[in-house]
Amino acid sequence: MHDNDERWMERAIELAEKGRYTAHPNPRVGCVIVKDGKLIGAGWHEAPGEPHAEQMALQEAGAQAEGATCYVNLEPCTHHGRTPPCTEALIHARVGRVVVAHEDPNPKAAGGCKLLAEHGIDVTVGPLRQHARKLNRGFIKRHERGMPFTVGKMAISADGRTAMPDGQSRWITSEPARQHVHQLRAQSGAVVTGIGTVLKDDPRLDARLAKVKGLPPLRVILDPHGRLDNNAQVINPPGEVLQFTGTETDAYSRANRSVVKVPLVNNRLDLKACWRHLADLEINDIFLECGPTLLGAALDQELVDELVLYIAPKLFGHGARPLAYLPGIECMEDQHELIWTSVRKVGPDIELIADVKARRG
Amino acid sequence: MHDNDERWMERAIELAEKGRYTAHPNPRVGCVIVKDGKLIGAGWHEAPGEPHAEQMALQEAGAQAEGATCYVNLEPCTHHGRTPPCTEALIHARVGRVVVAHEDPNPKAAGGCKLLAEHGIDVTVGPLRQHARKLNRGFIKRHERGMPFTVGKMAISADGRTAMPDGQSRWITSEPARQHVHQLRAQSGAVVTGIGTVLKDDPRLDARLAKVKGLPPLRVILDPHGRLDNNAQVINPPGEVLQFTGTETDAYSRANRSVVKVPLVNNRLDLKACWRHLADLEINDIFLECGPTLLGAALDQELVDELVLYIAPKLFGHGARPLAYLPGIECMEDQHELIWTSVRKVGPDIELIADVKARRG
Repeated sequence: MHDNDERWMERAIELAEKGRYTAHPNPRVGCVIVKDGKLIGAGWHEAPGEPHAEQMALQEAGAQAEGATCYVNLEPCTHHGRTPPCTEALIHARVGRVVVAHEDPNPKAAGGCKLLAEHGIDVTVGPLRQHARKLNRGFIKRHERGMPFTVGKMAISADGRTAMPDGQSRWITSEPARQHVHQLRAQSGAVVTGIGTVLKDDPRLDARLAKVKGLPPLRVILDPHGRLDNNAQVINPPGEVLQFTGTETDAYSRANRSVVKVPLVNNRLDLKACWRHLADLEINDIFLECGPTLLGAALDQELVDELVLYIAPKLFGHGARPLAYLPGIECMEDQHELIWTSVRKVGPDIELIADVKARRG
Repeated sequence: MHDNDERWMERAIELAEKGRYTAHPNPRVGCVIVKDGKLIGAGWHEAPGEPHAEQMALQEAGAQAEGATCYVNLEPCTHHGRTPPCTEALIHARVGRVVVAHEDPNPKAAGGCKLLAEHGIDVTVGPLRQHARKLNRGFIKRHERGMPFTVGKMAISADGRTAMPDGQSRWITSEPARQHVHQLRAQSGAVVTGIGTVLKDDPRLDARLAKVKGLPPLRVILDPHGRLDNNAQVINPPGEVLQFTGTETDAYSRANRSVVKVPLVNNRLDLKACWRHLADLEINDIFLECGPTLLGAALDQELVDELVLYIAPKLFGHGARPLAYLPGIECMEDQHELIWTSVRKVGPDIELIADVKARRG
């Protein structure tokens, strides 16, 4: 590893960030090409079908790329997808060195580093690896484990409650928190909710406040008994809607609708089957916005990777509804463990973010 | 107000902070004396019986005090208490100007500014008033309203729970959070708990981890039916113990014990009577560490001014015990409102601090 590797990789990751709302299902990738301590080319991947980051950077660098160092946060691809492989372009440009933060988890596209080394190019893997992994955690988890990365979001009171005893829950949190939720939706491939939330709150679950370009996320409704109908706001365009159900249903019809039948287990949808289906649809990131029953089931089945909690400056009391119905918890050993990764004020509310640890036993 | 008033008042408040753990039941007071833009005297009040801040600063300034400006965060006292009045000393030293952040709320000691003005001294009241008020919030509330300022503390899971379904609650939070709790105890005149917590957790409720000088806080046990006995760790020296009870009791005896009989209301102690009694004992600040029943009752009776929540990175689930049993909450309008004032990580946990808003209706 050379002295400035982390500094240049930071630039590459900054560029990759530009694809946060648009690159999926592709990964977020940025690239800088450096010669004699100077940046001579930069690029990022904006959206499927658009040039890859390395291609954009190589184009800017032109003939100067010969002997230069290329920094890219994800291993250059080797496959002919919508664009020709980047590894080939780097070899062709005769770069002297390639520095990669994270290996490509996609078996179809991997092997880039090996191929570069075989062509005499000096290869370094690793600088800012954790940072690069976090940026593409959805893409990486989908390829490594066949499941989307899932962020569960809840708005709660200071005493951890999601609704009043009478069911009221709008609005627990403030406009700035809701604005931020739209950003989180916009960077996800799918927003998933349960039919209970649709019937109770009639949410739109779109990302209109995010004000970013990019396709609206797929809205997914878990609807075991086919109760979704034409009046729900969640089915309105723009954007596609996917209804998972355990029964025959045609209670509503829209051009943007698709229906997927999934087995019922104890009268509930097989959540893992739904998640796998979304991975097959190339959904990298799921944003799960639902009630305490679905959140509890998803946590119990270890489908949730991160929790985002918006804590309103309010106390609802012991009679109000819980954050999650978590089955099978009796004593300390049964608890679900988290790791706090972020804490900040958002308007009058507080945003806490946690990694969800794998369960013991 | 002059250009540098806030800057010098900041210095005075920094000095006042030195009395945080030791000044009570007196207020925390700091003083700087400034002449021609230079600090010529500084002082603070360390503990009852020790010199007042103004006296210490005047002594350092000596004859130079004539015509100088004196900055003090609380209005100089006019009464002969354990020490002669500071107002008199300032007049005698012929200072030219006195700048005060907050008026003295103690009717016995107030009137200092008026007296200074009558002696031709230029008086300014107000710079950093809110900051000064916060520093002495307990002293001020006790004198303004006859009640101690009360901080309610709870260690909770991310879903707002204080104990497992089986009652287990040790330890929800980590060593760094517990360390900080000892600091909060040490700066309070009294630590208040309920007999339920004593019998369940057998806490010591002392401030041994705080490592500050000053008297240990009075430990107060609300024990309506006289169940406290000789085995409870909370009664061990050092420090005094006060038992509020609604019944005749001599289940235990110790030299450091006092017992106060208080009327029972619906089989519970009259909390307001207990609080008023503590104010009469010159307790400025109560640190309330108890279970969800007592916390809920204290919130319901508007006895809690600030909440400090330590949120562990854990989920306990819907079957676990609540943060507070709050009577009479049915819909959104019934909620208790807070204002978040601080949010930060403490070790692996999160500390949230909130002001408790007065209830509507």
